[in-house]
Amino acid sequence: MTDMEAAIKTVVTTFISSSKGKDNLDKKGFQKLVSKQLGGIMEDTNSSSAVEELKRGLDENNDGKVSFQEYLSLIGYVANSLSQSKCGTNADAS
Amino acid sequence: MTDMEAAIKTVVTTFISSSKGKDNLDKKGFQKLVSKQLGGIMEDTNSSSAVEELKRGLDENNDGKVSFQEYLSLIGYVANSLSQSKCGTNADAS
Repeated sequence: MTDMEAAIKTVVTTFISSSKGKDNLDKKGFQKLVSKQLGGIMEDTNSSSAVEELKRGLDENNDGKVSFQEYLSLIGYVANSLSQSKCGTNADAS
Repeated sequence: MTDMEAAIKTVVTTFISSSKGKDNLDKKGFQKLVSKQLGGIMEDTNSSSAVEELKRGLDENNDGKVSFQEYLSLIGYVANSLSQSKCGTNADAS
């Protein structure tokens, strides 16, 4: 398996384990995923109000949950931020 | 760094190395990325006509290149396929 394939699998399996196999992440599952998995590249991941606000931003159909599709938007958002910082000052490239 | 952070970084650095630091992947860069990195989870990655068709599908602004944003759609697409196969028969879960 290539790095890229492993990376995509990690993205998928992280969602599945956080949602316990359901189609959506509920509030608790999403908070846990963000705080446990993204604390190193996002800010305020331990603030439940900040994470709740993030969830509202992702939750396009306003059902209070984060679907796999909505979760992929988050990955895209984080990847974009990272890509900009790498192409710019190259900060945090380690 | 968590698995998820490493995965997102891999997605970003793979694009950067394939585009040689440019904003877009040209035809050759895209073909190389797909055949070298995604051959294990996508079909026909060694067929340049199939990969060209894939590129056309991603290339929303029809400039013949694949932007980072368009590349993220590909990741989402692959992740979606993988997620469906995992939730279904659980094939290829290794």
